Amino acid sequence: MSADSTYSTSNRNLQAMEALAIGIDIGGTGTKFGIVDRLGNLLFSSEMSTRGQDHLDSYIDELYHNVQPLIEQAGGIGRFRGIGVGAPNGNYYSGTIEYAPNLPWKGIIPLSKMIKDKFKLPVVLTNDANAAALGEMMYGAAKGMNDFIMITLGTGVGSGIVANGQLIYGHDGFAGELGHTIIIPEGRYHQGTGKYGSLESYASATGVVLTTLEVLAGSNQPSLLRDIPEDQLDSKKVYDAAMKGDVLAKEIFEFTGKILGMALANFVMFSSPEAIILFGGLTKSGDLLLKPVREHMENNLIQIFQQKVKILVSHLKESDAAILGASALVWDLKV
Amino acid sequence: MSADSTYSTSNRNLQAMEALAIGIDIGGTGTKFGIVDRLGNLLFSSEMSTRGQDHLDSYIDELYHNVQPLIEQAGGIGRFRGIGVGAPNGNYYSGTIEYAPNLPWKGIIPLSKMIKDKFKLPVVLTNDANAAALGEMMYGAAKGMNDFIMITLGTGVGSGIVANGQLIYGHDGFAGELGHTIIIPEGRYHQGTGKYGSLESYASATGVVLTTLEVLAGSNQPSLLRDIPEDQLDSKKVYDAAMKGDVLAKEIFEFTGKILGMALANFVMFSSPEAIILFGGLTKSGDLLLKPVREHMENNLIQIFQQKVKILVSHLKESDAAILGASALVWDLKV
Repeated sequence: MSADSTYSTSNRNLQAMEALAIGIDIGGTGTKFGIVDRLGNLLFSSEMSTRGQDHLDSYIDELYHNVQPLIEQAGGIGRFRGIGVGAPNGNYYSGTIEYAPNLPWKGIIPLSKMIKDKFKLPVVLTNDANAAALGEMMYGAAKGMNDFIMITLGTGVGSGIVANGQLIYGHDGFAGELGHTIIIPEGRYHQGTGKYGSLESYASATGVVLTTLEVLAGSNQPSLLRDIPEDQLDSKKVYDAAMKGDVLAKEIFEFTGKILGMALANFVMFSSPEAIILFGGLTKSGDLLLKPVREHMENNLIQIFQQKVKILVSHLKESDAAILGASALVWDLKV
Repeated sequence: MSADSTYSTSNRNLQAMEALAIGIDIGGTGTKFGIVDRLGNLLFSSEMSTRGQDHLDSYIDELYHNVQPLIEQAGGIGRFRGIGVGAPNGNYYSGTIEYAPNLPWKGIIPLSKMIKDKFKLPVVLTNDANAAALGEMMYGAAKGMNDFIMITLGTGVGSGIVANGQLIYGHDGFAGELGHTIIIPEGRYHQGTGKYGSLESYASATGVVLTTLEVLAGSNQPSLLRDIPEDQLDSKKVYDAAMKGDVLAKEIFEFTGKILGMALANFVMFSSPEAIILFGGLTKSGDLLLKPVREHMENNLIQIFQQKVKILVSHLKESDAAILGASALVWDLKV
């Protein structure tokens, strides 16, 4: 065997050894993580709590402690190319999390560096919605698309924008905060940001509850929703009431869909995407939400954009999509 | 002289021969055109009327007739690499103008093909604001920037968006219609589009006149503006009144700046640009407009975007900028 062929064999081994990525999705409540191969198969996954983790060092220790067994199961650290992390206000350029209102750590957090030092693997960070958009582009509803917008409708409203086949990061890495765009000037107050009338204050699960309280207070009409104690109201219960024919509950979804539809029209007139991919808890409401969304989006579009833009619901399994998206960051890593 | 050196000489000639571009800017009122070199020097320019040119064929004939002498002055057709055209609703991908409300030709117009057939030169088309953005990136205030938004504040409001160093065209070539985004839901009616509450219906020269009529009708306060016959009102006269201390005129600019500032905040939270470049007649109002714009943009930005985004006024000569921008399209032509 010549020296050349030895070299070539070890090269092949190296490729096989770097066939896996770790995807980590940090949310306000929980942190989900998993081992993903290049085809987007989630081989192993688990989760831990984020809430209450006031000390960042011990959070990273606990994360390492939890991920380490999965790494071993998958054949050891040598098989991994890197770690992809999605987190609110995660910055792709700096590797820091900056002023994330829903995370326990305040200010500017050098998250990439801390995880890299602990795991001894390259780390790439972006915000959670960008990670989800990448996941959709590689493995989901946006496969093959060069221009789309991903909107996550959960506790908050997040977004990731792809144009010309690339994630839009902006000059500072923070592009795509569509949940904070103002849709009703001087409208509803947003506690997390101190701003008025943002999309997130209406079209999130939290927003739906606030709308419910307003609608109930502003009407004397009987409603199933009046039987639910205020602190137990959530968007799922409003959905259930609407499905039972409750008039006020249906109004709440019509109102939410109208605001979201108007916002989507604005986003379309910005980047003219082929599709808008919706993701997250609120999409479970199906046509109850999507019908008014489509109607009001079309109503607010000028002619050249009408009847062109698909509104799709993500078909990735919700708990997996965020991990897949975060892991997808790793394949572009220049190591 | 060897065959090789002959070849090399003719190659050099070819480069010299293709050192020029024709830039054409088609507006609702007039069509401006000029000869531009690679450094952005406008060597010759002229203009003709667009308004009243109901027959597209005779418009193209007249355009050719007007441009031809400039081509000869510049050394003949052999020196030209191509023609760049900026026009409202101009589509980069298809080379067509589609449903442009302010042009005399209705429906879908194969403009690129018609100009190419007439001039026997490659033609590239985009919308007027995209052309202006390219001009700013190559020769103006956005030189060296990878992420910026160009907003033209004229009779209407146009926009061109650059992210990751590229113009955002969208899946269909129509991205960047920010003037039509809804900023006041169910707000002012826009005659051209039939929509309500768009940015253009407030933050254009036309919008300022409409605001003036509303403000005058809604108040008994004395104002210099009351002496101007309604059909002679324009944004310049409102500016002059404000500079003389007229309270209502100042209110009109404060209101316009508030709406534009809020819209800019939304655009920043979309693509996080390094700067927003303003261009067009309304920018001549200077701080009267820009002060409230800056204030209300910052007020509506969430923390991570605050005090980061420059608002710049284009320093390209207005009549030249559009031609320069259109000509800039030519240098990327794959001939």
